[in-house]
Amino acid sequence: MFEDPYTEHVLLTPGPTPIHPRAQQALMRPMLGHMDPEIFALNTDIQADLRAMYGTTDTTFTALLAGTGSLGMEAGFANLVESGDEVLVCANGSFGRRMADMAARYGANVRLVTAPLGEAIDPDDVAAQMDGVQMVAVVHGETSTGVLNPVPQIARIARQHGALLTVDAVTTAGMEPFHMAEWGVDYAYTGAQKCLSAPPGLAPVAISDRALARYHARRTPTPLWYCDFEGLRDYWEHHTYHHTVPVNLHYALHAALRAALDEGMLTRKARVQHVGQAIQTALAPLGFTPYVQRPEDRLPTVLALRLPDGFDDAGVRRALRERHISVTGGLGATAGLIWRLGLMGETARPAPYRALMNALEDLLGVQGLTARFDAALEPVPA
Amino acid sequence: MFEDPYTEHVLLTPGPTPIHPRAQQALMRPMLGHMDPEIFALNTDIQADLRAMYGTTDTTFTALLAGTGSLGMEAGFANLVESGDEVLVCANGSFGRRMADMAARYGANVRLVTAPLGEAIDPDDVAAQMDGVQMVAVVHGETSTGVLNPVPQIARIARQHGALLTVDAVTTAGMEPFHMAEWGVDYAYTGAQKCLSAPPGLAPVAISDRALARYHARRTPTPLWYCDFEGLRDYWEHHTYHHTVPVNLHYALHAALRAALDEGMLTRKARVQHVGQAIQTALAPLGFTPYVQRPEDRLPTVLALRLPDGFDDAGVRRALRERHISVTGGLGATAGLIWRLGLMGETARPAPYRALMNALEDLLGVQGLTARFDAALEPVPA
Repeated sequence: MFEDPYTEHVLLTPGPTPIHPRAQQALMRPMLGHMDPEIFALNTDIQADLRAMYGTTDTTFTALLAGTGSLGMEAGFANLVESGDEVLVCANGSFGRRMADMAARYGANVRLVTAPLGEAIDPDDVAAQMDGVQMVAVVHGETSTGVLNPVPQIARIARQHGALLTVDAVTTAGMEPFHMAEWGVDYAYTGAQKCLSAPPGLAPVAISDRALARYHARRTPTPLWYCDFEGLRDYWEHHTYHHTVPVNLHYALHAALRAALDEGMLTRKARVQHVGQAIQTALAPLGFTPYVQRPEDRLPTVLALRLPDGFDDAGVRRALRERHISVTGGLGATAGLIWRLGLMGETARPAPYRALMNALEDLLGVQGLTARFDAALEPVPA
Repeated sequence: MFEDPYTEHVLLTPGPTPIHPRAQQALMRPMLGHMDPEIFALNTDIQADLRAMYGTTDTTFTALLAGTGSLGMEAGFANLVESGDEVLVCANGSFGRRMADMAARYGANVRLVTAPLGEAIDPDDVAAQMDGVQMVAVVHGETSTGVLNPVPQIARIARQHGALLTVDAVTTAGMEPFHMAEWGVDYAYTGAQKCLSAPPGLAPVAISDRALARYHARRTPTPLWYCDFEGLRDYWEHHTYHHTVPVNLHYALHAALRAALDEGMLTRKARVQHVGQAIQTALAPLGFTPYVQRPEDRLPTVLALRLPDGFDDAGVRRALRERHISVTGGLGATAGLIWRLGLMGETARPAPYRALMNALEDLLGVQGLTARFDAALEPVPA
């Protein structure tokens, strides 16, 4: 039986993140219809703000898909791939493998470029397999391992070969500068509940003119009616009915996105680095070490830390959960081996991680974690 | 530029409906993760309540799709149709035609059974085309015209021929008894923002064992990874990660669904009839007449009224909108010809329609509408 969870939880997970206060307030706005003029005005604002967030040109088509980030991933393959297309998927974690699965379901011949777990994709491996490839797909920040893939270099290779580039920006866009136009990305998506700290249920997307041209050259309609690019444009640009968008979530995302742009991407990136460094400084004496070996391969927004030898992963996380602190462990091969500490949106703040340090001091019977954490945060106050 | 719409609007549309107060309150519950035990307990409650709402057996698989009703429609075709299947679609309005479009996109050979606008599908027309048909699809209540299609009779025919039956229950389930098991429906879906008065962004679905058997007999995976029945069951029944569900919307839907079941489907049905009759009584002297000729073909939850000759449809609806009252006109061929007054969830109450009567008295310079409306509601008080 469901019990009322009115308790506030400290979410240190790689998503969902705590909802931004401005988004929480916006969620309570009175209901309006998806075809009401106020909602079209709201959507136009959201589109402009998404262009700023993704670093696109002023005319690039942006929109919110009425679903989570996985639907954002799927819409790229559904609209831009047809049976028999050659698609190169960079797969060095769960989300890269999910991309390969989806591309295959939409009829692609999938070429996989892999890397050992905890390592970034090598652009040379991509370049070596580009012959005849129509689309390259890569996860910018691989949430399952805390690895940052070299999107700008991969984009250069895709451009040289005339291939489209789809980028999963779930852990990056909205938390630090994303340069879609400058890099040459054709389709990018994220989830509302990640770097923007909005409620889950929306996938903000950006679609380049090259991608739209590919869409218009399709031989057959995309099976995915719900996210058909033309249907989306009918609603977002021509204001004709397609499906009922979740207006309450639009209210909240609009507020969270504005808050993120008001703060600025460079400030947010600095916040992530600052808190991330303090966490590592605080935990290092206990034996926590970076899981990703090469510093340039480390994803700032999902801090993957290898656990000390003999550390009781499940037991400690369970005890933390009893204190209403959620920490996420590894997935698959890294289960029991690592923690993945989220540093997206409202999670990348001193207060929630100070709560973790306090609880760990008590649970592990060690001292000095909170003091080390606070000292590492100096001179920036909480 | 988006202006703050904190004004309360009177939504008399066929969706979205005003959010139920218990759902509005639940929307503000503190954030939790989609893998947290409290959310799995909440989901289990929702599944049980959906079984009650749809009138299924105790073991029928129910779930919420993380998208709107159209995604509910699409998931049925995506999972239950393969290339070359014979699908018979009952299409007597916009949503029936949408079904035909989707079925074709997933490779079906589509046979259309149509009826003139404003008339229900004739079961004999369905029976005449059943040879070799693997699936029948029908919209229970056609929102675009206010027509109720004879689902029980169509279900009997589908059963006789061993075909699956997909039913769009968007304007029916949650507002009056729906008998999925008794009738023999295999896949049913609705949208959260219709009869349940929850926020938009979720599609409650129910899937029969026959439908699951058909799914398991597929020769190829469904393209639609996001709503793959097996992926949904992984999350909803085995509690393994599939995609991030919109937990805030789950909170709200859970509260709205409980409120609906607490009230009871027969009470809700009576409420619809009562308010609908009062609206017709009040407006009849102005020349508003039922658009759907045969009383048994009239959908109770979307009252389609033919406008009086010379009535300034667009002008009056614009003037109502300036008073924050939203009324929906016709779609396509019925544009300018009809109004479609929603009677779903919280819209099927005297108060919002009294606001309409008051405004019309003033705008049209007529008297007695509100008094007639109130008299017709006697002896049940608002």
